[in-house]
Amino acid sequence: VKISKLGEFGLIERLARIVQPSDADDVIVGIGDDAAVWHSGDRFVIATTDTMADGVHFLSKNADWHAIGWKAFATNASDIAAMGGRPEYALVTLCLPPDTDVANLDALYEGLRECADACAARVVGGDIVRSPVMTITVAVFGRAGEQHGEPLLLRRNSARVGNRIAVTGTLGDSAGGLRKLQEADESHPLVTRHLRPEPRIAHGTAAAGAGVRCGIDVSDGLLQDVGHVCEASGVGALVRADDIPLSNDLRAAFPDDVLELACTGGEDYELILVGDVELLARLDPPVTIIGEIVGDPERRVRLLDAAGNEINYERQGWDAFR
Amino acid sequence: VKISKLGEFGLIERLARIVQPSDADDVIVGIGDDAAVWHSGDRFVIATTDTMADGVHFLSKNADWHAIGWKAFATNASDIAAMGGRPEYALVTLCLPPDTDVANLDALYEGLRECADACAARVVGGDIVRSPVMTITVAVFGRAGEQHGEPLLLRRNSARVGNRIAVTGTLGDSAGGLRKLQEADESHPLVTRHLRPEPRIAHGTAAAGAGVRCGIDVSDGLLQDVGHVCEASGVGALVRADDIPLSNDLRAAFPDDVLELACTGGEDYELILVGDVELLARLDPPVTIIGEIVGDPERRVRLLDAAGNEINYERQGWDAFR
Repeated sequence: VKISKLGEFGLIERLARIVQPSDADDVIVGIGDDAAVWHSGDRFVIATTDTMADGVHFLSKNADWHAIGWKAFATNASDIAAMGGRPEYALVTLCLPPDTDVANLDALYEGLRECADACAARVVGGDIVRSPVMTITVAVFGRAGEQHGEPLLLRRNSARVGNRIAVTGTLGDSAGGLRKLQEADESHPLVTRHLRPEPRIAHGTAAAGAGVRCGIDVSDGLLQDVGHVCEASGVGALVRADDIPLSNDLRAAFPDDVLELACTGGEDYELILVGDVELLARLDPPVTIIGEIVGDPERRVRLLDAAGNEINYERQGWDAFR
Repeated sequence: VKISKLGEFGLIERLARIVQPSDADDVIVGIGDDAAVWHSGDRFVIATTDTMADGVHFLSKNADWHAIGWKAFATNASDIAAMGGRPEYALVTLCLPPDTDVANLDALYEGLRECADACAARVVGGDIVRSPVMTITVAVFGRAGEQHGEPLLLRRNSARVGNRIAVTGTLGDSAGGLRKLQEADESHPLVTRHLRPEPRIAHGTAAAGAGVRCGIDVSDGLLQDVGHVCEASGVGALVRADDIPLSNDLRAAFPDDVLELACTGGEDYELILVGDVELLARLDPPVTIIGEIVGDPERRVRLLDAAGNEINYERQGWDAFR
C-alpha cells in the first residue's frame, strides 16, 4: 500500500500504534496533538517538530531565505502556543546539497534567530547532513504553565458539547498572500502574512491560564483543523461563515473567494480555542467566536451561511499525501 | 561560497555564530558538542538530533528498513550517551515521497521502537511531510545525572594534558560491516555491527558518575573524533595503534586494512572517554586505554606505531560535504 492511499492522517495513526506505549506514566500527551507533553522533574515539557522540504514547502530557486528561516521556527512555536505553552529551546537540522550557497544559509539562520528572539526562545543545537534535496527541520521544546501540580494545556480532545469555538486574528490571509506571491505581487501586504506568520503565544498562554482546555492552531485550514478537534473529542461543530474574522486586505484582494480562503486556506497559524462562552469572552488578547460544539456521532464540521444553509467546499484543507 | 568549500565543521561554526546567544543563563552546552544541555527546573535536559537521507546514509531501493529505524534512533541515543546522559523521549520526522510503501514504514518504526525500548526511551511525537527524497530525522531528549546541583557531563572541551584516552568496545567493525554489505556478504557477523550499533549508555553514565568529564562518540572516525576533542580542549593527542581494541572478526576479514578501518572508519558509536588514568582503569563496564592527551598548540592527533613512528592516513574520517 502506497502512503498516498492512506493519506497523512491515516499514516500517522498507523505508525503511532507501533510506537505508542501501552502504559501512560510520565507521558501526558503522545502522538496525535499539536505537540507532545511529558512530566520532567518539577516541570511539564512540551516538544514538537516540523519540516519544510524544497519543492513542497518552498522553492530554493527563488527563495526568500530569511522568510524560510522565520517560518521554520514560527510553525513550531505555533504548535507550542496551540498547547498553551511557551517555546524555550530549539534544535535545527539542515539537509543540504553540497552546492548550497552559504550566503543563503546565513539569511536562513538570521530569519530563524529573529523569530526565536521574538518568541524569547533560542537555538541550542542541531545537525547538518548532505542530501540531494534541501530540507529544514526544527524541533522546539517549551513548557506548560501549571496549577496545583497539573499542566495547563490546550488539548484537541477536550471539546465538549455546548462549548463555543473562537479564533485569534483574521483567517485566510496566508492563503491570499500565497496567491499574491504566485501573481508576482510581492509587495502586497498579505504576502507578509504568508511568509512571516506570528505564533500566538500570548493568546495561547492567556487561554490556558484562564481555564480554556481545548485548542489547535490553523495550519491545515480552519475547517480541517476544527475537524481534528471534533475527531479527537468525539463531537461535531457548527461554524458560522458570517462570524469568521476577515481582514480588509483579503476582502479587497479576493472579494469572490474570501470565505473559501479563510475556511480552507491554511497556514494562518492563528489559534482555534474551544471552551465556555464566558471564558472565551473574557480573554485578553481578545478572540472572535465563530461557532459551537454540538453532539454528532459522525463528528462533522458544518459551515453555515446567514440563512442556516450548509456551505460545502470540495477541499477542506491540506493533506501532505493527497 | 558553496558549502562544499567550507566543509561540515566550518559551516557549523559559521551558523552557530548567528544563533549563539551572547549571554549564558540556562544553556549549559550549546552548539558544538554531541548534544545541547540546558537547565530546566530541577533537571538538566540533554537534547540532540540526527538525520539520515536516502542516497547518502541509506539506499531506499535496497534497504533493510528495520535496521534503518534502529540506527536512526541509535545514533541519537549515542550522542546522549556521549554526554554522559540517558535518553528518555524522541520525536521522529519523516520526509516521504508519496509512492513510499507503508510496509517499509511499518518496519522502520518497528526498528525505531526496538532501539528505543533497548534504551528505555520512547517515541512521543513527530512530523510527516511530503518530499522528493526520503529523510528520517530523530530528536532525542534525555537527562544528565547530577551531584550537588551540578550536571555530570562528558564534554568535548574538558580534556587536560596528562589525561588518558580510552574507548569502549572494539573499533572498525562498522566500517568492516559496510564493506561486507558492499561485497553482498550480508550474513557476515560484522554487518550487524554496521546496521545495529548499540548506544553505550551504561558506559557513558558510569563514566560521568565516576568523575570522568570528557567524552565523545565515534561517529566520524576515531582520529577525527579525538581531533574534535583536541580542537575543543586546546590540546594534542597521541594514539597508540597497537593498543586500539580490534575484534577477531575484523582481523580475520580485513587483515591488511584493520588498523585503517579502526582509525578512520567511523559509525562505531563506541565512546571515547578522556580522564585520569585511575578513573578510567576503575570503570565498569571496562574500557581500553589507547593514548594520552599532550600539550600541542596545533592540536594535532598523532597515531604512533610500536616503534613510536607516526602513521598517516589520507582520510581521517567523515565530513558531510567533502
